Amino acid sequence: MQRYFINKTQINNNIVTINESDTHHIKNVMRMSIGDNVYVCDNINAYLCEIVSINEVTTLRIVKKLENNPELSVNITISQGKLQREKEEMVIKALTQLGCYQYIGVQMSKSIVKTKKITDNKIDRIQKIIKEASEQSQRNRLMKYVSNITFKELISNFVNYDLVIFCDIAESKNVTLKELLSEHKYKNILAIIGPESGFSKSEKDAIKNANALTISLGKRILRTEIAPLFLLSAISYEEEL
Amino acid sequence: MQRYFINKTQINNNIVTINESDTHHIKNVMRMSIGDNVYVCDNINAYLCEIVSINEVTTLRIVKKLENNPELSVNITISQGKLQREKEEMVIKALTQLGCYQYIGVQMSKSIVKTKKITDNKIDRIQKIIKEASEQSQRNRLMKYVSNITFKELISNFVNYDLVIFCDIAESKNVTLKELLSEHKYKNILAIIGPESGFSKSEKDAIKNANALTISLGKRILRTEIAPLFLLSAISYEEEL
Repeated sequence: MQRYFINKTQINNNIVTINESDTHHIKNVMRMSIGDNVYVCDNINAYLCEIVSINEVTTLRIVKKLENNPELSVNITISQGKLQREKEEMVIKALTQLGCYQYIGVQMSKSIVKTKKITDNKIDRIQKIIKEASEQSQRNRLMKYVSNITFKELISNFVNYDLVIFCDIAESKNVTLKELLSEHKYKNILAIIGPESGFSKSEKDAIKNANALTISLGKRILRTEIAPLFLLSAISYEEEL
Repeated sequence: MQRYFINKTQINNNIVTINESDTHHIKNVMRMSIGDNVYVCDNINAYLCEIVSINEVTTLRIVKKLENNPELSVNITISQGKLQREKEEMVIKALTQLGCYQYIGVQMSKSIVKTKKITDNKIDRIQKIIKEASEQSQRNRLMKYVSNITFKELISNFVNYDLVIFCDIAESKNVTLKELLSEHKYKNILAIIGPESGFSKSEKDAIKNANALTISLGKRILRTEIAPLFLLSAISYEEEL
């Protein structure tokens, strides 16, 4: 069944107001009518709803809250050296399916992509990918996307997380991911992954000096676009299976 | 360091003979000389070698066997409904990095790709992808690739594995993957994954009747190209971290 993502403010006394753009989708793409059912997600819960009226906006009546929560119990933020567009889109589509909470592109010194300005068009395109993948994987929330921050901003963000893990190859590891996940119930994990050509020496030092824990992602060298998928899969396996 | 994949028969009394095509790579791409070092992998072990002579073929002397084994302790075969070319290539590249033992394309009734004949060109292209990904991820063996079997052949292959798992959405699960992996040390696991549009009813019935165990891959619906990546990552996490 079709799934729409809304803000909590769009719900009032069991009635949901759907905006013009989603109304266009309901009317002209799905060709739905009064009485038809849709799911609505407010970034925390999902609801089964019935269409009450369709005009410029659509109003829905909440029939029931869905009990099944498809979100990971821990918020995983992936921060990654800015990737080439095609790779970034592939990673974002996959991470959305895998339950990632947030994706942050970071300017790193070896990033091939040197983008200071990200166009609105590009951000719209990414938001569309996230929306479609969230719908297809039946999530209750949209993955957050931050297109571009500096390396300095990344480091100063560490304080917002209760665990920061550094996914680097050929480094001596502090601890295994399994040990970390079994020791403590984390709420907000930040993972740092390099761009295609890896980290510079000074970036590595800065990350370690800011007390990130270096972990391994298995015995083989993974390309940067596969590393975050491995991490989300491993955490989902540990938490959900 | 450059890594070449050979057959065991190319090793004789500590001397390795490298074929013409890899010799071309050593001479003209890497521009290496006598005395330079390379790694050689015979699908089980990897060796540090020194170049002894370069002519039409190259001869190497084994300096030492490498102790670090980057292969998973369990052989995972992914069988998947035949995918569109681009998706199949993406999956194969990722699975090679993640330590997959074998990939088998299967004709399923909902596959968009209806290929009876796979051209040699196409198979060469896939083998090249596997070789490059094996080298980059520093594996000791090349992932095996079977381009195309019938669904009937898939079912008759079940006897070659000590565990067959069926990765389907919206099915009641027999058991969790974590339970399976903790109960027993499997040597050869076959996983069955659908094409883009999923399995037909009769395919599902045949798989279950042949005693495959239905398992879950987390709480969200994964697209077919992400499902095998999840599975390999989860098994690597369980076995190696």
